[in-house]
Amino acid sequence: MPGLIEHTQRYRPIHEFLSGELQAVNEIIRRQLASDLPAVNELCRHVARYQGKMLRPTLTLLCGLAGGSEASAGHLVPRHTVRVLAAVSEIIHMATLVHDDVLDDSQMRRSAATVNHLRGNEMAVLLGDYLISNAFHLCSTLDRPEISRRIGETTNELCSGELLQVHHRDDWSIDEATYFAIVERKTASLISLCCRLGAEEAGADATLSEALALYGSRLGVAFQIQDDLLDLIGEERIVGKSLGRDLEKGKLTLPMIHFFDAAAPDDRLAMLEALAEAREGDWTARVRSLLLASRAVDSAHRVAAGLVEEARGQLSAAPESPARQLLDDLALAVISRTS
Amino acid sequence: MPGLIEHTQRYRPIHEFLSGELQAVNEIIRRQLASDLPAVNELCRHVARYQGKMLRPTLTLLCGLAGGSEASAGHLVPRHTVRVLAAVSEIIHMATLVHDDVLDDSQMRRSAATVNHLRGNEMAVLLGDYLISNAFHLCSTLDRPEISRRIGETTNELCSGELLQVHHRDDWSIDEATYFAIVERKTASLISLCCRLGAEEAGADATLSEALALYGSRLGVAFQIQDDLLDLIGEERIVGKSLGRDLEKGKLTLPMIHFFDAAAPDDRLAMLEALAEAREGDWTARVRSLLLASRAVDSAHRVAAGLVEEARGQLSAAPESPARQLLDDLALAVISRTS
Repeated sequence: MPGLIEHTQRYRPIHEFLSGELQAVNEIIRRQLASDLPAVNELCRHVARYQGKMLRPTLTLLCGLAGGSEASAGHLVPRHTVRVLAAVSEIIHMATLVHDDVLDDSQMRRSAATVNHLRGNEMAVLLGDYLISNAFHLCSTLDRPEISRRIGETTNELCSGELLQVHHRDDWSIDEATYFAIVERKTASLISLCCRLGAEEAGADATLSEALALYGSRLGVAFQIQDDLLDLIGEERIVGKSLGRDLEKGKLTLPMIHFFDAAAPDDRLAMLEALAEAREGDWTARVRSLLLASRAVDSAHRVAAGLVEEARGQLSAAPESPARQLLDDLALAVISRTS
Repeated sequence: MPGLIEHTQRYRPIHEFLSGELQAVNEIIRRQLASDLPAVNELCRHVARYQGKMLRPTLTLLCGLAGGSEASAGHLVPRHTVRVLAAVSEIIHMATLVHDDVLDDSQMRRSAATVNHLRGNEMAVLLGDYLISNAFHLCSTLDRPEISRRIGETTNELCSGELLQVHHRDDWSIDEATYFAIVERKTASLISLCCRLGAEEAGADATLSEALALYGSRLGVAFQIQDDLLDLIGEERIVGKSLGRDLEKGKLTLPMIHFFDAAAPDDRLAMLEALAEAREGDWTARVRSLLLASRAVDSAHRVAAGLVEEARGQLSAAPESPARQLLDDLALAVISRTS
């Protein structure tokens, strides 16, 4: 939650609960990653800095409240399984960040040096592997094979989404359907599973679990669209990570797809020329100004806003509760964020 | 087994059994990695070419015979769990090969282009992740959380061994103890677990399982020493992969450690000079000739041979059987191989 939702007086008890739970989640992560090798511990301490929004743990915990019958009565029940699932999701996410930074040649993440920049690509690849391995190991300590199975299915999806994205590298004719296929796999699948498992652990019935899973899926896609928008038109200082990397790495995201869909021939040509220079010099300013002069940013944002409304609509399946309200706020925050 | 042990008349029934089992294991791997995305399937088909010795599946299957009471009676019992474990171990191994090739900048593996060489580092990093994820997913389908937990513990070990190795990159003063710490984690831990789990699934008691785990551990270290020897003095054409990569990447392995331990000051200086040029031009010939003129190759080989004897010694805990005999042959083949 930090950074995504303002703490308001109205929700203070649940904010305090969540903040305590997130601390407990971080403690589980810290203990899981602890090694007898000082070199490994040093790397893990560095990566812990990347944890920012803790979106996945927050959603797991909130759906673990909103999905339960105690939620509306205001009971806040901590559950070991939900905490561990939250930790597993965050470690998986950390692994994808570390490997993404290798793929994107990024130098900065949450205003700190990336592992690849600091210690080289080799260390970063191996550290990502260490994180993935630990995520699965932690999950297996739950003694719940069906959970391990679903986490594994989801990371299979996640990885194939990333592979599909790299497969379409430098493909300036990629369409919206392909973009959504990539994003649903690489981003939305894990977020959706977090919501679903949180809800199920709270005892939610199939209808409610499905609704919260759909909430997570829509929110996940919207989150990625906002990420892609920030990569194109965000302020590096505020976002806290290397920007402009998508185009540099030949990744066409929704705003660019919308640009090409709607552009007049001259603008299309101008953009292709700017992209052709994308690996040399100051090309980003040109891309950015062409993009801002078009309606592509607005229309991508509208798609994200539509998805957020779909996500919020799913919440009516849950009984009214502070947790449900926070899930609603969170969905809105996902597309209004600037970092 | 192919490539490691000659098929002899004496063992024909078990060879035929093993060959059928390895086919079944490959079929499990193929089904597990199948994706709805053609791009992913194409990559997986390419990586399947790297499968050569299938050492880990073979050991899992053989210990799954040698550990059982049927073994001495000549009954060959196929077991679904053992096959799946064999497949899991091979997929994990494939993932480490794909990522190792990225780390080592290797261009060739089993006489085929590496994924990084063919499709770039990004694809190779992601494909490795896809393989790791699938290994854990496949393991979870066994519905045996304690197995998932031990696989996870072992891959944690494996990754920390790799991290420790990269941490000691360019450290020309690394000692034997550190070398063994790295190798026991990165290579022996998984091989040992294959033997242990195979034995346990066959119903072996704690003493026999422990003996076979130790067999695997010693054999694993010996296997790695032979790999390291081949990297220094093997024939690229025969080994079928890029050689000389260890030194180029600043990895000091046992033969080099022994060289420095025993070298006269002049030889030490000559070697350090050759290594200083290690990233430019034809330096390997110089390193190789210094190494061959010393006793370092022999002494590293002797260490490996000693480990193989230790491994073979553990086999006396198992009842006499064709499977036990093959494990014995396999241990010897590990250090006599030239590829």
